[in-house]
Amino acid sequence: MAKKVFPLKKVYTLLGSGPVIMVSTSFKGKPNVMTVAWHTMIDFDPPLVGVVIGDQSRTFEVLKATRECVINIPAVALAKKAVACGNCSGRKIDKFAKFGLTPLAASRVAAPLVAECFANLECKLKDGSMAKKYNLFILEVVKAWIDPAKTLPKTIHHLSADKFMVAGRTISVG
Amino acid sequence: MAKKVFPLKKVYTLLGSGPVIMVSTSFKGKPNVMTVAWHTMIDFDPPLVGVVIGDQSRTFEVLKATRECVINIPAVALAKKAVACGNCSGRKIDKFAKFGLTPLAASRVAAPLVAECFANLECKLKDGSMAKKYNLFILEVVKAWIDPAKTLPKTIHHLSADKFMVAGRTISVG
Repeated sequence: MAKKVFPLKKVYTLLGSGPVIMVSTSFKGKPNVMTVAWHTMIDFDPPLVGVVIGDQSRTFEVLKATRECVINIPAVALAKKAVACGNCSGRKIDKFAKFGLTPLAASRVAAPLVAECFANLECKLKDGSMAKKYNLFILEVVKAWIDPAKTLPKTIHHLSADKFMVAGRTISVG
Repeated sequence: MAKKVFPLKKVYTLLGSGPVIMVSTSFKGKPNVMTVAWHTMIDFDPPLVGVVIGDQSRTFEVLKATRECVINIPAVALAKKAVACGNCSGRKIDKFAKFGLTPLAASRVAAPLVAECFANLECKLKDGSMAKKYNLFILEVVKAWIDPAKTLPKTIHHLSADKFMVAGRTISVG
């Protein structure tokens, strides 16, 4: 599990295609993680990401309070755990313990990396002004990591309810 | 090419997985279309969509001026044309004519539907206040259409430069 630094200006290649992400936070040393489907790249370099976080969630509260999180990208092998993390609240459960996820120390934020994810993007909250109206947080990625052992990870993309699309073949269109 | 009305509350199932979209506009009767990879669902019903449109583009200008557009979703068969539409400007070219795309009259907006796309979402600009800072437009989908003849369309998802992921298999994760 040796994570490798990933260039910030290439972060768009990880998120632009719309994979499900797992957003981890930490509040007073207690880690939490939530699964999120709705996000978009906003800018390349520094990478800005817009993420929609339900305002009833613990993650919404903690992200507003601590202004930090990590965007973790799971591949299909982690799909069951990712979905489970999206269907319960960190107010009642230690999701890392319950779902057997491994928190790793990040370098720039207190929120942990999820070791099992193939990419991890340490983020600072850049703009929370759209949180109240649209549940939308603008995050700046300040450090990015990739697991070089996991090649061609098959991301999962939410379709509806319990249905997900698994990343298919790659094509070049010139 | 008989388009069928699609329920607004299910629009999230079309966009949530991050497909490349083609944003069509109309200015004084002249249609234009641009291909966009960065967008996110913001809310379910009424469906709100956040779309990032480069501020150097003709589409940015026209969307601000007319406050209307259509989000069209291409499947992989349209990939070449979609990419071509993203690599030139409507200031100089009639892209519908050049790339052999068919504009269809929409019901609620002046911008045309792209007939060749399997889904078409007529949109009104709900909030342009983030356009200056983040190139981000919040759109409300006011009418949605789907082509019932095109089953299981394989969407395309941008990875980097000329690389795209084609939608793969669907899984249920319970």
